[in-house]
Amino acid sequence: MTAERIDATQRAMRRRGIDALLVSIGSDLPYLTGYRAFPLERITALVLPVDGEPALFVPELEAPRVDTWVEVHPWAETDDPFELMTAVLPETGTIAVGDQMWASFLIAFQTRLTSASFVDAEPLMASLRVIKEAEEIAALRDAAHGVDRVADQLGNVRFSGRTEREVSHIVTELTLAAGHDSVSFAIVASGPNGASPHHEATDRTILPGEAIVVDFGGRVRGYGSDTTRMYCVGSSPDGFEDAYAVLLAAQKAAVAAVRPGVTAESIDAAARTIISEAGYGAFFIHRTGHGIGLDAHEQPYLVEGNEQLIESGMAFSIEPGMYLPGRWGMRIEDIVVATEGGVDRLNRSSRAIRFVD
Amino acid sequence: MTAERIDATQRAMRRRGIDALLVSIGSDLPYLTGYRAFPLERITALVLPVDGEPALFVPELEAPRVDTWVEVHPWAETDDPFELMTAVLPETGTIAVGDQMWASFLIAFQTRLTSASFVDAEPLMASLRVIKEAEEIAALRDAAHGVDRVADQLGNVRFSGRTEREVSHIVTELTLAAGHDSVSFAIVASGPNGASPHHEATDRTILPGEAIVVDFGGRVRGYGSDTTRMYCVGSSPDGFEDAYAVLLAAQKAAVAAVRPGVTAESIDAAARTIISEAGYGAFFIHRTGHGIGLDAHEQPYLVEGNEQLIESGMAFSIEPGMYLPGRWGMRIEDIVVATEGGVDRLNRSSRAIRFVD
Repeated sequence: MTAERIDATQRAMRRRGIDALLVSIGSDLPYLTGYRAFPLERITALVLPVDGEPALFVPELEAPRVDTWVEVHPWAETDDPFELMTAVLPETGTIAVGDQMWASFLIAFQTRLTSASFVDAEPLMASLRVIKEAEEIAALRDAAHGVDRVADQLGNVRFSGRTEREVSHIVTELTLAAGHDSVSFAIVASGPNGASPHHEATDRTILPGEAIVVDFGGRVRGYGSDTTRMYCVGSSPDGFEDAYAVLLAAQKAAVAAVRPGVTAESIDAAARTIISEAGYGAFFIHRTGHGIGLDAHEQPYLVEGNEQLIESGMAFSIEPGMYLPGRWGMRIEDIVVATEGGVDRLNRSSRAIRFVD
Repeated sequence: MTAERIDATQRAMRRRGIDALLVSIGSDLPYLTGYRAFPLERITALVLPVDGEPALFVPELEAPRVDTWVEVHPWAETDDPFELMTAVLPETGTIAVGDQMWASFLIAFQTRLTSASFVDAEPLMASLRVIKEAEEIAALRDAAHGVDRVADQLGNVRFSGRTEREVSHIVTELTLAAGHDSVSFAIVASGPNGASPHHEATDRTILPGEAIVVDFGGRVRGYGSDTTRMYCVGSSPDGFEDAYAVLLAAQKAAVAAVRPGVTAESIDAAARTIISEAGYGAFFIHRTGHGIGLDAHEQPYLVEGNEQLIESGMAFSIEPGMYLPGRWGMRIEDIVVATEGGVDRLNRSSRAIRFVD
């Protein structure tokens, strides 16, 4: 599997005039080798020449945990890993570096290879990773079904009197119990905190009559889940349900706009037009969605100005939202896969507001 | 607090000939602004000129959650954040970039500022962060006491018949219950898995007579904990306790070697000599310790070849280990702070093997 991906990567490197690929932390490494590195100061990196065999350099103390078909080169605590890797990198030419490699590592390579040209590997790797294989879609689907179950279970959980942090902890536990290998985030944003799209759960106590944004996700077999549903304690705030009807129509319109051949920005526009025409345009302060796979956020990005064409096999979120500072926020999020026939919505839990105790 | 740190940073920049500092994800940002950014594709970065005011560029959707005295510049989804930041960076001169910034971001800046010289900000920032203030030591101490309590509680937990993953989950729950804000890792490495120092908990079931390495840590008020203790189910493997006596002597010798004015490598040597003389040298495959603070691993690194002098206020781990492939591993880890008088060991839970059911 990953051997075929290495071959495809080398073909794409040849087309793009890239002489060597250098990937470290982030998801390119597990995509190509099956191994995910620690985001720490001891560098782990794969060197892949355009012609030749891949070599994975790992800290000696982490070598016992590396399970890959790629040749592993452990480096000891007193070695200089940059010298070891520089020896197998081209002295001149173009070296593409993984997008999430630490800047300090890139500078260490640039200092040693002053005649080489370093470019961002993200366009190269995204061109391969953006189209999901059947096995990848199966993992995304399993992940989506897991969080769908949790979204439903949360409808029977008491929110009132609990802090955001307590509810966030319940979300985490339920998601692990639903079969996730890990939980990456569990946003619980209550009342006015809902107006902060990337809010982190606090010790704020949730009160009756408040709306709560619950946006959570994790990983199943390496692939991400990401869903957002809305909860209200007993009743909803004034005007909330009218606004919600607009948001739901916008989210459904964006899902319906997905099919091969349309631009990424046109899906954003499908949601944004409905929200703007209802007068809420100023409160929809983010793009409509992002790709998902081994990374929580990856190509394609559904944002104005992105004319990238949607292709069958692309997986991404559809998550319009509206944020009224000091009052409330709302968002509805599903992961979808573009298919030959149009769209496959992976998240299937009800998008209606859930009224909780 | 952070305003004083900004002043100190600018003075250090002047001494080092750095014209601007550019920090993104990682711990330099919370150190300087109180704000920790998300490790995502939308860049958050602080621009600090050597003379002038700091400016924090954040994605518009994350602006509501930013609580800092620094001037915040939100950028919208359709803005180019690199253009906005380039406009306030020097066109020539030396720009120091935070060590953990994504390589793709650094390349975006390098492409726009072709006459500037980009250097790693780690030496600059480490020179400031390596000496902990009283408040930072207090947080490290609270974090250490939290995990000490958990290490003791684990002595009453049944390991036998549970998987590593189940015990890891118990460690996580107990650590949160002990007052940690988050848990960063909870290594549970049983039997032969103990020989992999950075092992991640698996579905392997723990058996009677096995030794288990439990190495865990998280954050309290931003500052890290990190401790390792050993557990044996009922009885210990053949030869384990003899080897453990050597390891414990080595760990105590390294702690005793800590005082201002000694080199980092001399503390490593204090542990390594004892282990080598007992014949286990080949099995101690990592350095003796790493600094700790806002980052889980930071300066000083206790490794052969590092002649850095220990100063009062430095905080770091002392964690020798021994790893017999296919059989078992063992490690003992405390966080210590160098003081005028010598050393303050923050972790105080018993270092004896705990025999569990």
